[in-house]
Amino acid sequence: MSEVKDDRLSGVLCPVVTPFAEDLAPDADRLIRQCRWLLSQNVGLAVFGTNSEANSLSVDEKMMLLDRLVEAGVDTKRMMPGTGLSALPETVALTRHAVKLGCAGTLMLPPFYYKDVSDDGLFASFAEVIERVGSSALRVYLYHIPPVSQVGISCDLIERLVKAYPDTVVGIKDSSGDWNNTKAMLERGWNDFRVFAGAETFLLQNMRSGGAGCISATANINPASIDQLYREWQSAQAERLQSKLDDIRTTAAAFPMIPALKATVAHFANDPEWRRVRPPLVALDDDQCDSLIESLLQKGFDMPGLS
Amino acid sequence: MSEVKDDRLSGVLCPVVTPFAEDLAPDADRLIRQCRWLLSQNVGLAVFGTNSEANSLSVDEKMMLLDRLVEAGVDTKRMMPGTGLSALPETVALTRHAVKLGCAGTLMLPPFYYKDVSDDGLFASFAEVIERVGSSALRVYLYHIPPVSQVGISCDLIERLVKAYPDTVVGIKDSSGDWNNTKAMLERGWNDFRVFAGAETFLLQNMRSGGAGCISATANINPASIDQLYREWQSAQAERLQSKLDDIRTTAAAFPMIPALKATVAHFANDPEWRRVRPPLVALDDDQCDSLIESLLQKGFDMPGLS
Repeated sequence: MSEVKDDRLSGVLCPVVTPFAEDLAPDADRLIRQCRWLLSQNVGLAVFGTNSEANSLSVDEKMMLLDRLVEAGVDTKRMMPGTGLSALPETVALTRHAVKLGCAGTLMLPPFYYKDVSDDGLFASFAEVIERVGSSALRVYLYHIPPVSQVGISCDLIERLVKAYPDTVVGIKDSSGDWNNTKAMLERGWNDFRVFAGAETFLLQNMRSGGAGCISATANINPASIDQLYREWQSAQAERLQSKLDDIRTTAAAFPMIPALKATVAHFANDPEWRRVRPPLVALDDDQCDSLIESLLQKGFDMPGLS
Repeated sequence: MSEVKDDRLSGVLCPVVTPFAEDLAPDADRLIRQCRWLLSQNVGLAVFGTNSEANSLSVDEKMMLLDRLVEAGVDTKRMMPGTGLSALPETVALTRHAVKLGCAGTLMLPPFYYKDVSDDGLFASFAEVIERVGSSALRVYLYHIPPVSQVGISCDLIERLVKAYPDTVVGIKDSSGDWNNTKAMLERGWNDFRVFAGAETFLLQNMRSGGAGCISATANINPASIDQLYREWQSAQAERLQSKLDDIRTTAAAFPMIPALKATVAHFANDPEWRRVRPPLVALDDDQCDSLIESLLQKGFDMPGLS
């Protein structure tokens, strides 16, 4: 669950997959329904994450979807939309919009087109966004995902940002896939800095080391079980819960992740529309869908309450 | 020079560096002046290329700059603006705008956030853009720059696109830095397909193998000499011209390229405003500027007519 302690987030959050209509327009109604279901599973909403195909959406589309979620009464205190883009003015505009709507935080990629950029340049970029948004309500969770963005966020950069903006730069999602990196962040011991593992694979380790939870693709399909481990990480069955989570994740990850998540939602919601992705991604074909669902069912997997 | 044969471009084009005001807003007046100077040097305008910091500009800023260039009477028949973005609707909007203004072509990156995407997915992405723009005036030059975009455009993908859209997909800029890749494209022999080297480093080889010219960062500072090699590639002095170009490029490339280009323009235009870059890039410091300019002057380098 994305609990509120002070105003910083913790728990399990989900980079919610984005449904598309036949003309590839984002489908706000289906997204609202999915977000409500995820909240009912005790999972917070990191909409516009990598697994949301966020970088295949225009800034206008993301603003519209945020507006629609808020109009529908989805709780902004449990929302951490992704707002980091390549172009500074677009990051500022989307972040400002999220803050204006009352979102508890924003998950911020570094500008990701230019490679081999320096920490000085990245610091200037985040600082410029924070200064331009200019709101005491802004809470930035940095987004470190070098396998995709190719531009990473070093511990030294985090430290500079936390020192310059202690009430604004309050956490990170570490999707490096490298536990040693997550551990290094935790060991720095920045005051109440929230370190989220980028997958539930590291959830137990992260909790044992003082982390805040995880923000994971697989929370789209397995939210309650991931949240259970978050709540029961100190229990005797924690290792067993972790192992079960790993098993489901491995099964899904045998296929391209985003299409697989959508195919799974489509199956269990009995709603084939969910299978659609935007180019450059490609939806699973029927055989792949059948194979994925069969593998999941063999594990006893289900998505109760999904509609 | 960006000659027009039929309506396809060839010659030397420049990814024009984008000037920024003190508040980091793009400076249309300086850009117009720079474009006019480049045209006077016989070089075409690939505005919004990688070296233009195009992906640090918002879609709105790029549309505004295009509007201002056209209003100022800059020849659209010599313009190939970069219009390929991560988000499909934004690529469509910017490409449509360029076509509406009469630009001779657009230089199109693949969607570059998601990695390890398939040729099927990239084909769908380009096809969707072309169908949505829906104009017989659209001329797409693909932009292959794997060292930066990390998402490349294979020969097989080009072939599929050329077959599906023979009058629309008409060329490529190959910034792989790998001559064998450029050569492989040329050897496919697609009908009148324009292969531009991504740097003048390969200009002579490209022309000897049937290429169309080059689109090069260094054309920002050394346009006339690069154009001379383009025009005189069959002359006895071609090797010597190539060698001189390589020498200047190597000198500039000892520094981060975009800041170095801007520092050089700033020096020779006697206009320090030009040194400014947008985060995440960092401008050269005074010592670096002095060192760069000194190295260039030692080579007898000049930028005549720049103001």
